[in-house]
Amino acid sequence: MQMTDLIAKKRDGGALSTEEIQFAIQGYTRGEIPDYQMSALCMAILFRGMDDRETLDLTLAMMHSGEMLDLSPIRGVKADKHSTGGVGDKTSLILCPMVAACGLKIAKMSGRGLGHTGGTIDKLESFPGFVTGISEQRFFDNVNRIGMAIAGQTADLVPADKKLYALRDVTGTVPSIPLIVSSIMSKKLASGADVIVLDVKCGSGAFMKTPAQAEELARSLTRVGRLAGRKVAAVITDMDEPLGCAVGNALEVKEAIRVLRGEAKGELLELCLTLGACMLTEAGLAEDDRAARRMLQQAIDDGSALRKLREFVEAQYGDPASVDDLSLLPAAPIRLEVPCESAGFVSHIQAEQIGLVSMHLGGGRATKESAIDLGVGVVLHKKVGDRVEKGDSLATIHASDEKKAREAVELLRACYTLSEAPVEKPDFIKAIVR
Amino acid sequence: MQMTDLIAKKRDGGALSTEEIQFAIQGYTRGEIPDYQMSALCMAILFRGMDDRETLDLTLAMMHSGEMLDLSPIRGVKADKHSTGGVGDKTSLILCPMVAACGLKIAKMSGRGLGHTGGTIDKLESFPGFVTGISEQRFFDNVNRIGMAIAGQTADLVPADKKLYALRDVTGTVPSIPLIVSSIMSKKLASGADVIVLDVKCGSGAFMKTPAQAEELARSLTRVGRLAGRKVAAVITDMDEPLGCAVGNALEVKEAIRVLRGEAKGELLELCLTLGACMLTEAGLAEDDRAARRMLQQAIDDGSALRKLREFVEAQYGDPASVDDLSLLPAAPIRLEVPCESAGFVSHIQAEQIGLVSMHLGGGRATKESAIDLGVGVVLHKKVGDRVEKGDSLATIHASDEKKAREAVELLRACYTLSEAPVEKPDFIKAIVR
Repeated sequence: MQMTDLIAKKRDGGALSTEEIQFAIQGYTRGEIPDYQMSALCMAILFRGMDDRETLDLTLAMMHSGEMLDLSPIRGVKADKHSTGGVGDKTSLILCPMVAACGLKIAKMSGRGLGHTGGTIDKLESFPGFVTGISEQRFFDNVNRIGMAIAGQTADLVPADKKLYALRDVTGTVPSIPLIVSSIMSKKLASGADVIVLDVKCGSGAFMKTPAQAEELARSLTRVGRLAGRKVAAVITDMDEPLGCAVGNALEVKEAIRVLRGEAKGELLELCLTLGACMLTEAGLAEDDRAARRMLQQAIDDGSALRKLREFVEAQYGDPASVDDLSLLPAAPIRLEVPCESAGFVSHIQAEQIGLVSMHLGGGRATKESAIDLGVGVVLHKKVGDRVEKGDSLATIHASDEKKAREAVELLRACYTLSEAPVEKPDFIKAIVR
Repeated sequence: MQMTDLIAKKRDGGALSTEEIQFAIQGYTRGEIPDYQMSALCMAILFRGMDDRETLDLTLAMMHSGEMLDLSPIRGVKADKHSTGGVGDKTSLILCPMVAACGLKIAKMSGRGLGHTGGTIDKLESFPGFVTGISEQRFFDNVNRIGMAIAGQTADLVPADKKLYALRDVTGTVPSIPLIVSSIMSKKLASGADVIVLDVKCGSGAFMKTPAQAEELARSLTRVGRLAGRKVAAVITDMDEPLGCAVGNALEVKEAIRVLRGEAKGELLELCLTLGACMLTEAGLAEDDRAARRMLQQAIDDGSALRKLREFVEAQYGDPASVDDLSLLPAAPIRLEVPCESAGFVSHIQAEQIGLVSMHLGGGRATKESAIDLGVGVVLHKKVGDRVEKGDSLATIHASDEKKAREAVELLRACYTLSEAPVEKPDFIKAIVR
């Protein structure tokens, strides 16, 4: 088999066989197929697409490129959630305790943040004493005992994706649905969950700019997941502005706790109820969406979801008191308001830019080795559709450096677009695909 | 400027600017842009195409990647010819003396053969004593004195093409018109001729399988050449079978001499008259095609074209007697006929396979370093449209090894397809594009 022939076949619109896809992925992972052939193949796939069988074969070939997690020591239905990436996305911190309180098992391997999007592992380290590098034994014990554990990824899952993603990133071959689907699903399948729920972001701050593109991605993700024998659902959500109000590690933890306490509602709670309902129904723990949402709301109302977070933090050596006393969480010494310079209605907030402001303050990593400042970040007071008067604060900057704080005020103001006419807030949940 | 942005721009259907194209080609030639980015860009160009301005910019950027020949020491109009590659193509050996006899100047740098197509330089070395590595001074002197010189390429012309062609060859990015045009025209422009005539092959034995594809390529080649300030014409010719009858170095030289003597006619003479007429009219040495063809036919009839070949061979230290006494040229000791096993009409001859048979006999190079046997090859006695009786010889194998000769008989027979019904020979000259 020759890689040149595979490239020509896809270039000319043919479908690659299972064996051809395995040949390409195995050869590339082992370093036998050079980058320049793989990038040409990726570009041909970008133009010609792949059918469901090819996309599944690609996903499985990538999944088999490294280790796979065996979650069989865990009793019950194991669930996992994935988001295609967003700014201010603290969903996992809320959703996991909610569904664990309803009886689902969450055994999650999570990554650190890089660039302008934060990682769940970094956010969790805001809890004083919290350990993400727990042993496999303790990981499984915790899930069996309290229903959830979230650990930093130690196993060598899907090395093909690490190599391929780095190549796609510099060869213009990221925006291809079969390549995105195989990248996401190979990792989710290798992580071993029975139920996988996907949050597909849509809008100016996301990869998929239009609802049609997002739906195409969501349909391909769920089809491939089902063909691989898992229960899968996808929720398409708006990413024309950051999710919720807080952007920055400890700030996002505080917002998450307020949602679990029932103090904060809005789109963040709505997203967690929607994703959670998909999880519970796919897992067979609720008869339908309505029943599932009732169970999840109950877990907020009776405090069981917050209690689950407390148990989880304690089981990973964190201080459970910090769940109740937010002053025990990291905080930045300097706070500056961002006064609005005119009146109007907020029509757009550049999510990606807000993420970069938080990074500028020290809340994100420029490279894998960077240290991060857990207390800094941004809290937005005005969201799309809100009426603003001149002098109103758009947001509060939380910083540890006076100069950076002042720079952040200007950068943040530039993220907002105002309109004179009232702005209708777009539907936050665009569609549910299952 | 970032290569990733250029790839994305072309991927999304944009036109690359002059500066962007120069950035890509200069960076790639210097090794600053890696192969994996260039192959992705080539694949995006293959799918999205390039407009005339982009194709010209790409051609010029490649032309400027290395040395350029300065033909100003030569008096008169300098002409050059290029063929997109064919089996049995000895056109240059006939055409150059014909047009030189009519007053055009031919200062040609030529390559050696690789794979199943032969190189003019190899064929010329069939003349005993012939030297292709003459000095620049002698090269110019010869052109000024007798009207023509053909030398092996010494200057580092278009290094970008050498690197890019090797990459395209292994990444499925050869069949793209702007990439083919820039590869051909960058070399022709760097070689300095005022008039460039292109022989674009069309058919099963060529890159361009259909007349429409060949015409698209021919139109792009001529447009780019004209935009670069040269006089250009292209002739689209049939490549559903080898050109003429002989395939193999000395065998092709002998066929060429017979055409110059007026002994052999047919499509080979017709091609030389057509290409030569384009050259003479573009150069302004003939008023129109009819006048040009008359001049060229006259050069055959009065022996001046053959005399020009004799002068040319002598000026490059070859034995001029070998032009008149073909027994002085290399010959293979073994000759085997290829008897036909049934009766019918020849409907197709696999040109590429015939080239491979000649290579198998030792007449071609598998790698750049291979030595070649100038005497071996194949002479076809039956061409497409010919009636064949059982037992008729389809061809004669010229070999230096008994075993290879016997193998070649079987290989060669397999190149022929016969039909029971009479076969109409396709038009050899498909179109002239200027």
